[in-house]
Amino acid sequence: MSSFIGEVIGTMLLIIFGGGVVAGCVLNKSKSQNGGWIVITCGWGFGVAVSVYAVGSISGAHLNPAVTIALATLGSFPWADVPMYIVAQMLGAFLGGVLVWLHYLPHWGATEDKGAKLAVFSTGPAIRSTGANLISEIIGTFVLVLGILAIGANKFADGLNPFIVGILIVAIGLSLGGTTGYAINPARDLGPRIAHAVLPIAGKGDSDWGYSWIPVVGPIIGGVLAALFYKTFFGA
Amino acid sequence: MSSFIGEVIGTMLLIIFGGGVVAGCVLNKSKSQNGGWIVITCGWGFGVAVSVYAVGSISGAHLNPAVTIALATLGSFPWADVPMYIVAQMLGAFLGGVLVWLHYLPHWGATEDKGAKLAVFSTGPAIRSTGANLISEIIGTFVLVLGILAIGANKFADGLNPFIVGILIVAIGLSLGGTTGYAINPARDLGPRIAHAVLPIAGKGDSDWGYSWIPVVGPIIGGVLAALFYKTFFGA
Amino acid sequence: MSSFIGEVIGTMLLIIFGGGVVAGCVLNKSKSQNGGWIVITCGWGFGVAVSVYAVGSISGAHLNPAVTIALATLGSFPWADVPMYIVAQMLGAFLGGVLVWLHYLPHWGATEDKGAKLAVFSTGPAIRSTGANLISEIIGTFVLVLGILAIGANKFADGLNPFIVGILIVAIGLSLGGTTGYAINPARDLGPRIAHAVLPIAGKGDSDWGYSWIPVVGPIIGGVLAALFYKTFFGA
Amino acid sequence: MSSFIGEVIGTMLLIIFGGGVVAGCVLNKSKSQNGGWIVITCGWGFGVAVSVYAVGSISGAHLNPAVTIALATLGSFPWADVPMYIVAQMLGAFLGGVLVWLHYLPHWGATEDKGAKLAVFSTGPAIRSTGANLISEIIGTFVLVLGILAIGANKFADGLNPFIVGILIVAIGLSLGGTTGYAINPARDLGPRIAHAVLPIAGKGDSDWGYSWIPVVGPIIGGVLAALFYKTFFGA
Repeated sequence: MSSFIGEVIGTMLLIIFGGGVVAGCVLNKSKSQNGGWIVITCGWGFGVAVSVYAVGSISGAHLNPAVTIALATLGSFPWADVPMYIVAQMLGAFLGGVLVWLHYLPHWGATEDKGAKLAVFSTGPAIRSTGANLISEIIGTFVLVLGILAIGANKFADGLNPFIVGILIVAIGLSLGGTTGYAINPARDLGPRIAHAVLPIAGKGDSDWGYSWIPVVGPIIGGVLAALFYKTFFGA
Repeated sequence: MSSFIGEVIGTMLLIIFGGGVVAGCVLNKSKSQNGGWIVITCGWGFGVAVSVYAVGSISGAHLNPAVTIALATLGSFPWADVPMYIVAQMLGAFLGGVLVWLHYLPHWGATEDKGAKLAVFSTGPAIRSTGANLISEIIGTFVLVLGILAIGANKFADGLNPFIVGILIVAIGLSLGGTTGYAINPARDLGPRIAHAVLPIAGKGDSDWGYSWIPVVGPIIGGVLAALFYKTFFGA
Repeated sequence: MSSFIGEVIGTMLLIIFGGGVVAGCVLNKSKSQNGGWIVITCGWGFGVAVSVYAVGSISGAHLNPAVTIALATLGSFPWADVPMYIVAQMLGAFLGGVLVWLHYLPHWGATEDKGAKLAVFSTGPAIRSTGANLISEIIGTFVLVLGILAIGANKFADGLNPFIVGILIVAIGLSLGGTTGYAINPARDLGPRIAHAVLPIAGKGDSDWGYSWIPVVGPIIGGVLAALFYKTFFGA
Repeated sequence: MSSFIGEVIGTMLLIIFGGGVVAGCVLNKSKSQNGGWIVITCGWGFGVAVSVYAVGSISGAHLNPAVTIALATLGSFPWADVPMYIVAQMLGAFLGGVLVWLHYLPHWGATEDKGAKLAVFSTGPAIRSTGANLISEIIGTFVLVLGILAIGANKFADGLNPFIVGILIVAIGLSLGGTTGYAINPARDLGPRIAHAVLPIAGKGDSDWGYSWIPVVGPIIGGVLAALFYKTFFGA
């Protein structure tokens, strides 16, 4: 398989899990409605682990433009391949959004809350404040990328690594997700937001494009800062 | 031990855990009543992990006709053995249902809700809709079988594999379980449904046979699609 | 260290975690009050994992007379050492109960519910019924010992085994704990019950001696049945 | 990287996770508000695991003066380096507190409860009682350090160790956290308490200096007792 298809499939899986768990928790009549924050964060984190297991040996399982750009910043990934990876990640995230919509098909019409329906696809701030929201996404992605780099530098038992990355995502969600919903990944946020905009979702509202640049720009800044920090202090 | 007995015991264990956790969460006077979605999904997922540890080295621990058929589709399992495996899985799932009934014996009479009692044995849709319910079971099982195939293709630390499969089941439950209760396994649904029909469960209702074909057909379709998808893109 | 002291320390740790998590969830003014079934079961299961890590290389970390007797039944442990192990386990469980009492010292007086206070030390049935309660403890311990034997027979990555046993305990608690509170261990129940009887616990009630034989006899029967089942079907 | 910077970064990460998860659960308008005890304890425990992965190969990832002093007591770490490690841990914990404040910036003003705001930074007792609170911190840290020493003595799969330490922290939080909030680490409590005192946190109250010595002295006593206990019984 090409690394392009690997990133498409991996990011699609990631959104199936990540969008799916939010859908289950917020859409009316879902059996997992109001499952709580532990459900959201474990669905996301374990879903990422599974996605990394699926395509890790094919594309490296970046599944996140902030990771791809950070690795390029470090010199561990060719800049020439960055656009191809980002396109694949965006495409996969869009397809994942479509599948989540399909999976929960009868639940959209059963749900009135337009904000809840958007939340299945994309993040939004708990308290809207451009500067503070941007800082949250920078800090969250800084911790994500620093964690990934440090975990990757350890010598591991074969097969343990993706699970530990999943635990990292669970921890970030638990600890840093309360403010902006931890996008920490431009593709995870923008791809499904486009899906939300184009899909015929029953009773949907607007796609909050005014906010949409923050979970793109914040994670890229946070990822690059983590790469520079890692280079400085961990000597990579 | 023969692989037949391995599949019987493994699937029996799987239902003891999976039916048991639902019983604990929905039956009156249970100490774990209303434990929440994280309890349901971890009980199922960790229970599957334990079941795979128990019989993995004996029968390969399919424990699921959709997995058996998918592996046969891929050419990784002989078609001639498929019927024997399915019979073993159905038998094990039936026995597991009997043991769950026995384990929670005084709680059936203490519970009025007939639907809750059926839910211990078999899945049902959050919103009844043939097409949408079928799609949900197809998508859920597609992700299950794709995940199992991809995880199995990695080189693993000895003994880690079944735990990761358990994490996959937890993630599917968290993210995709809200619609139809994630049967994603024909034996898991039909075996205990037969147990529900024949056991003298105090105050039971009907066994919802009208729905019963969906968690059989959907998972088989989803599993075969995953096998074909895997063959196409992962080159197995 | 002798295996006697290993079993004492390991079982003491097990009760510090297991009794402690119940205390935290049921005693008034505790920060973890009403933490829910996932808290109880993870506290128990992860606590067992840690206890097995602590003394596994010293005594084999049985920490449970039902496990010790089952291993002797299988011929994997000398019958002559069984009494010494059981005494150590009882002593450790008693000491663990004392430390839980000490740890939550100001919370006993703040709690009126005498049943809640006993529940920190020992199990009790959700619905009192001698036969059904005995069956529950037999089934729960059967699954426990079968799981331990099957997990132990796998070739594992160094250090993974105790964690998987912990996951097994979490799963049993989630799925089978709702009926009798999953004692599944005579020492775990009787040792702390004696501590409850002799300690000057503020506002305590009686120690429910009428029920106390069930979580002793049930687990021993369940463990022996599991050993015989394992010998028959897994050929050990 | 020097071990000094390793301890600074590791302890900073630990507080980003540990302070962050409390902030998310107690501050108004947070998406994870009232996430429950399982959220708090997994955020802490998985956060510690990630922090140990990050700097374990650099400084040994003590991240806790009680651990450093216990290791020195055992003769496994030079006393001459103890002050340097403690300074690094305090500095990292302070910086972590600053980053948590920054991450949740708009939520401080949205929250009236001054005690909740302090709880993000430092622990406080459920029932104030000098002797009992000190005992709780001693027992909690005794279990922590004994667990770390015993886990460290096992031969492990590469990379598994920090995860198991994380599971130990989760278990301690679940089982022993209800009384004093399980500081079990002088730097974890005092560093962020100083941050609370000096940062311009909107609507903050006092920093409860009267209690502040207990989560410093208790953990040191508990850690030293664990080292002596380990030396006596485990022969290290």
